[in-house]
Amino acid sequence: MNLRDTARPGFRKAAVLGAGSWGTTFAKVLVDAGAPENGAGESAGTSPAAGIRDVALWGRNEATLSRMARTRVNEKYVPDLHLPDSLLITVDLEEALTGADLVVLAFPAQTVRDQLPAVAEHLEPGAALLSLAKGLEQGTGLRMTEVIAEVLAESFPEADGGHDRAGWARQTCVLSGPNLAKEIADEQPTASVVAAEEPELAAAVAKAIAAPYFRPYTNEDVVGTEIAGLTKNVIAVCVGICEGRDYGDNSKASIITRGLAESTRLALALGGRQETMSGLAGIGDLVATCASPLSRNHTAGRLFGQGKTLEQVREEMTQTAEGLKSAPAVLALARAHSVDMPITEAVVAILDGRITVDHLAPLLLGRQLKSEATPE
Amino acid sequence: MNLRDTARPGFRKAAVLGAGSWGTTFAKVLVDAGAPENGAGESAGTSPAAGIRDVALWGRNEATLSRMARTRVNEKYVPDLHLPDSLLITVDLEEALTGADLVVLAFPAQTVRDQLPAVAEHLEPGAALLSLAKGLEQGTGLRMTEVIAEVLAESFPEADGGHDRAGWARQTCVLSGPNLAKEIADEQPTASVVAAEEPELAAAVAKAIAAPYFRPYTNEDVVGTEIAGLTKNVIAVCVGICEGRDYGDNSKASIITRGLAESTRLALALGGRQETMSGLAGIGDLVATCASPLSRNHTAGRLFGQGKTLEQVREEMTQTAEGLKSAPAVLALARAHSVDMPITEAVVAILDGRITVDHLAPLLLGRQLKSEATPE
Repeated sequence: MNLRDTARPGFRKAAVLGAGSWGTTFAKVLVDAGAPENGAGESAGTSPAAGIRDVALWGRNEATLSRMARTRVNEKYVPDLHLPDSLLITVDLEEALTGADLVVLAFPAQTVRDQLPAVAEHLEPGAALLSLAKGLEQGTGLRMTEVIAEVLAESFPEADGGHDRAGWARQTCVLSGPNLAKEIADEQPTASVVAAEEPELAAAVAKAIAAPYFRPYTNEDVVGTEIAGLTKNVIAVCVGICEGRDYGDNSKASIITRGLAESTRLALALGGRQETMSGLAGIGDLVATCASPLSRNHTAGRLFGQGKTLEQVREEMTQTAEGLKSAPAVLALARAHSVDMPITEAVVAILDGRITVDHLAPLLLGRQLKSEATPE
Repeated sequence: MNLRDTARPGFRKAAVLGAGSWGTTFAKVLVDAGAPENGAGESAGTSPAAGIRDVALWGRNEATLSRMARTRVNEKYVPDLHLPDSLLITVDLEEALTGADLVVLAFPAQTVRDQLPAVAEHLEPGAALLSLAKGLEQGTGLRMTEVIAEVLAESFPEADGGHDRAGWARQTCVLSGPNLAKEIADEQPTASVVAAEEPELAAAVAKAIAAPYFRPYTNEDVVGTEIAGLTKNVIAVCVGICEGRDYGDNSKASIITRGLAESTRLALALGGRQETMSGLAGIGDLVATCASPLSRNHTAGRLFGQGKTLEQVREEMTQTAEGLKSAPAVLALARAHSVDMPITEAVVAILDGRITVDHLAPLLLGRQLKSEATPE
C-alpha cells in the first residue's frame, strides 16, 4: 500500500471529519470540485482520473448534525452557507468512512489525538489523509501530521495492513493558505497549497479538490507548511493586540514582517523551506489572517489589546482561537531548537499576564539601531 | 570628499526638499529626532555624534509655503499635523541648503530630474542625500538614486569638487518601509529602513533620523530597497482593484504573495537581495500599503475596480498615485531583464483599457494546477 508503488487514479469518495466552520465549508468545496460541469474527471497527463463523486461530512454532535442534515445549514459556524443536497451529513463514522479514499481531518488541533483511534477502525486501506488542523499538540509539541502518523501507526499496525509512522506520513498531506472559510463559503476566488512528501499525492489531492473558485497549488514541504499555518495564528494575536491598542498599519506591517522572519527561522531549523514561507501558505495565510476581522486569533488579540485578561477573552469568544493554545507550544519548540522568536515570546508573556500590552511598542521599536538582518 | 575617507560625525542640519505629505511629515520626524530629550547627541560606538539641530523644509509654491510658515500646518497634505516652531519653512532653496549636511529629496518621482540642477547649485560639498522618492523615471526606466547620481554628476562635476556617478551614488541613500505618512504624523510606532552602499553612511543617517516613534534599521541593498518601494505601488493598485470588485482577503493575500514573488524576481535580476524583499522595505511596505485605505495607489485601484477609466481615476484623485505612472516602466524593466511579472502586466493592461477588471480572477486562479514554485 506504499504510495510509491501505487498509481493514483484520483479519488472517488471524500469523508470530511469535523463539522466546524472550515470542515463544513471544505465539504462544500469538495462537492463543487466533483461536479462534472466544473471539469472533474478531465484527464491531466496520463492519469484517467475521475472526480470525487461522493462527499460525506461527519460530526459528533447528533442533535446538531441531524438538524444540519435536515436544514442543509450549519447554523452555528457557517450560517450563510447552503450545503449541497448531495452532501451526506452523518454522525455515523463508519458510514462516512466506508469507501472513502480521501479522508479530510478537520478536527480542532487539540482533539486530533483523541478522535483518531475511532477513525483508524473504519479507515479504508490506502486512503489518503488530508489535514486541515493547524496547531501544535500541547504537551508533546508535535505537528498535526506527526500526531496523525503516530496514532495511526499505533492503532493500525503493519501486521493488520497498516504502516509504520513514516508510511502513514507519506500517506498524509496538509492543506494551508490564505483560506478564510467564510470567503470560500461565498465562493470568493481563493488559492491554497497542498503539501505532501510525495509530489504525486499532492498533485492527486490538488486535482481532486480544485473548484472553480478554489485553486490548490502543491509543494513538498510538509514541515514548513504546517509551521507557517500555526505560527501565523500567534502573529495574528499580536497584530490583533496592536489593533486593540489603536496602533496603525505601519506597526501591524512591522509585526507581520518580523513575525514572518521569526516563523521562517523556526521552519528552517525544523527542515522547512524558505520558499514555503514566502508563498501562499506562509506570507499569504499570514496576511489574510492578520487583515481579516473574521480571524478568531486576530479577534482574540484585539480583546487583549483592549486590556482584557486571558479568562475574559476566552469567555467572549464562541470559537477556538488556536493561537492562544499554540503560542506556548511554539515558544517551547523554538527554545528547544535555539530559535529566537521575540514576538511569540511577547504574546506568551501577555497571555500569562507577565507583561501588559503597553510593553509591545518598545518591543517593536527597540532602543538600539541596528542592521535589519540581525535577529533581536 | 569620498565617504570612505570621511569619519561621519553625525549631521547638523537637514534640508527636506518637497513639501508634500511625506516630505512635510518627515521634516517633523527630523525635528523630533534632533530634540535633546529624545537622546539626540548620545554617542554610539566611537563617534561623538551630535543630533541634527536645524531642519529646513523647502517647497516651491510661495503662497502655500508662506501660509505654512505662518499657520504651521500643511493644510493640503497633512492637515492634522502641527509643525514644530523650530522648523524653518522656506521657498528659498539657498537658505534651505546652506549648511545642510543631510539633504532629503522628497520630490514626486517624475520631477526629480528637473528639480535637481537647482539643488546642485547650492549643495554643500560632502552633503549626504537621502531619497524619499519612489518610482522609476518614465522614459529612462532609471531608479531614483540613479537619476540623482546622473544629474548631480552632470551638474556638479569632479573638477568643481563634485563626483562621478559612482561617487554620488555612494553619497546617496534611500528611506523605505511600512511608512504611511499619516500614521507617522500621529506618532504611531513605525519602523523603517535606510539603505546605502556604504554601511557607515546608512548607520549615520539612521542614527540622525531616529525619533521615539520612528525606528530606522539599515541595509546595504539600495537596488532591492528601491525596487520594493516602487513595485509595491503597482501591487497595491491590483489589491485596490480586487477591493473595488468586492473580492475578499483570501484574494488580496494571494495577490500580495504572488506580487511579492514577482517583485523579488525583478529585484534579484537587478542585483538586489532576497532578504530585503522579506524585510520591512519589502513585505513590510507592501503589506502596509495594501492594508491601508490611506494609500493612494490602493485608492486608485479601488476606483478602477469600480469600473472607472484611467482618466476618471486621475480626475478623482488629488494626490499622485505613483503606481499608475510606474507600472508601465516596471513592466518595461522586467521585460528588458526577461522577468515574468503577470500581476504588473495585468495592471498595465487594465490601465491601458486592454482588459477589464473582470479578467483578474481568472488570472489569479489560473486553470492549470501546478507547483507553487513555477512562475506563471
